[in-house]
Amino acid sequence: MSAPSVQQPRDDQPGNPSDGTATLAEIARAAGVSAPTVSKVLNGRGDVAPSTRSRVEELLRAHGYQRRRGSVQPAPLLDLVFHELESSWAMEVIRGVENVARQEGLSVVLSESAGRLSPGQTWVDGVLARRPTGVILVLSGLDPAQRAQLTSRDIPFVVLDAAGDPGEDVPAIGATNWQGGLAATRHLLELGHRRIGVIGGPAGIMCSRARIDGYRAALETAGVQYDSALVVNGDFHHESGYTKGLELLRLKDRPTAVFTGNDLQALGLYEAARETGLSIPGDLSVVGFDDLPLARWISPPLTTVRQPLTEMAEAAAHLVLDISRGNQPSTLRVDLATRLVERASSAPPPQGA
Amino acid sequence: MSAPSVQQPRDDQPGNPSDGTATLAEIARAAGVSAPTVSKVLNGRGDVAPSTRSRVEELLRAHGYQRRRGSVQPAPLLDLVFHELESSWAMEVIRGVENVARQEGLSVVLSESAGRLSPGQTWVDGVLARRPTGVILVLSGLDPAQRAQLTSRDIPFVVLDAAGDPGEDVPAIGATNWQGGLAATRHLLELGHRRIGVIGGPAGIMCSRARIDGYRAALETAGVQYDSALVVNGDFHHESGYTKGLELLRLKDRPTAVFTGNDLQALGLYEAARETGLSIPGDLSVVGFDDLPLARWISPPLTTVRQPLTEMAEAAAHLVLDISRGNQPSTLRVDLATRLVERASSAPPPQGA
Repeated sequence: MSAPSVQQPRDDQPGNPSDGTATLAEIARAAGVSAPTVSKVLNGRGDVAPSTRSRVEELLRAHGYQRRRGSVQPAPLLDLVFHELESSWAMEVIRGVENVARQEGLSVVLSESAGRLSPGQTWVDGVLARRPTGVILVLSGLDPAQRAQLTSRDIPFVVLDAAGDPGEDVPAIGATNWQGGLAATRHLLELGHRRIGVIGGPAGIMCSRARIDGYRAALETAGVQYDSALVVNGDFHHESGYTKGLELLRLKDRPTAVFTGNDLQALGLYEAARETGLSIPGDLSVVGFDDLPLARWISPPLTTVRQPLTEMAEAAAHLVLDISRGNQPSTLRVDLATRLVERASSAPPPQGA
Repeated sequence: MSAPSVQQPRDDQPGNPSDGTATLAEIARAAGVSAPTVSKVLNGRGDVAPSTRSRVEELLRAHGYQRRRGSVQPAPLLDLVFHELESSWAMEVIRGVENVARQEGLSVVLSESAGRLSPGQTWVDGVLARRPTGVILVLSGLDPAQRAQLTSRDIPFVVLDAAGDPGEDVPAIGATNWQGGLAATRHLLELGHRRIGVIGGPAGIMCSRARIDGYRAALETAGVQYDSALVVNGDFHHESGYTKGLELLRLKDRPTAVFTGNDLQALGLYEAARETGLSIPGDLSVVGFDDLPLARWISPPLTTVRQPLTEMAEAAAHLVLDISRGNQPSTLRVDLATRLVERASSAPPPQGA
């Protein structure tokens, strides 16, 4: 394969035949349209009939067309897409991406996929038109067609904290969620707890599953029976920590400690404990996940598993920029370490429990 | 004045002489450069010598050059600039801008001016090159040169929650901060408090001054002496609520209630109260400002002055889009209403206080 060319200012330049991929002219011929029309589709221009567009997209995908690196100067933009823009969790991530963008003279385009786990076609069209230097997807992924569209335009992307399994060939940055669940649960076991509840995040989200699996591993290696009655799934919001927390605390044989899916859920659980007349940590120990700033500020300050969100976001930005420069990353998947931060919400179980 | 033209695809089109402004050709002649060079400067292109660039910029400013509306199609982008990206305060604003952007098929470019109250030249250069449909500045403004640069390119901007006085001719969206300070203080007066402290935001920030002036007005109309010993200024962070809170609580004749500059400061004050052995609201009443989600979640839930941040951001986005379409807003300055939200952190003062 030849070195990436940086001497090709026109984007209707045919692909490199030695790549074994189709050229733009060949795609045009197969679609029965002119090369400039294919070029318009590639550049996300609106003035192409939808049927022509989808025919061209299909051919681009079928032929594995890929724009030559360097044939088009990308815009000095980084696209950052969230599954949902909620809470200071997202703010920690944004800050990391902004840090790198500022150093590199790039601006950040922020989008929200409005709760869906892959962004909509409007977003993809926008990306094709504005040609960012790279794309970072947070807790969301791309469907195969969207992936093909970005790949054919040579727009690299990285997944941060993947919701599902992003696929082995997708660059991804995560955290050691399983180890985090293990550390949180071992901490509670060492304090003497035996009935330890869990409020998980959504069951379909990988990081949440990994945390619960870590919890289970800690119990089993300590010889404590796993009890499915103590494991409930919510979403990552405060409300779900409250409602699922009430469920656990109203059990006949209630847990003396609860490991929550994140810090916001822990706050919800604090409220459920107050309502049930249980004091933290006297009657109930709580361990969160994330270590958002508010974990230090609430009362009692929250014992939690720190995941380095800002550093993860910085790593994702560096990774996607590396790829945009034509460097093959030595490893496509990096999980940054989590660690337990002990504060005042965890203590030995009450006497007699 | 003639109607805005939408039939001028080239951006080196001379200005409309009937505007009384210089044309691009006239600017070029005065600067001793070619018209395409002036065009490059207008479009934020990097390939112009810095000295030429600043000469052209100066002439554009001196001649009040303004690109004809519709002569260049703006990019489907909204630029959103924060003074600093901190906490869920910023998240509420981002959400509002994203709501409008999504409806209008625009993407949001997010920047942080890294604590300075006007964004840097790198940001301005980026804006000139990417030509957003509009710019929203949060708690920050533009210096006169930056303003002239955006105006000459016909890129409209709106200030949200202006830090300083944005100037009468700058479109701005704010909140009724003075009324908020008045309402918070009246609430505490009605509960029976007479020694009411204030932790303000930075003294130079207008919204913060207005809140403290509202506080003072409430005291004076109630016949309560204003005591400058009870008024301290911090910044808008948790830490400053804690340190300034300790100062107030360690006064010989300490306040029985404190109105804080925002909710994060109130959280810091909660910590200072715990450390001083004072219970909220038994020994100390606290009223915050903003009504971030966490105000409901902390213990005790915080009485606070709600400012409708998401709605303010939506209003700013609508306003800047309106201006970009050539509509003259009927009023350049809109303050959205604040209102007191009573929760559990405020109560009558302790007996004998």
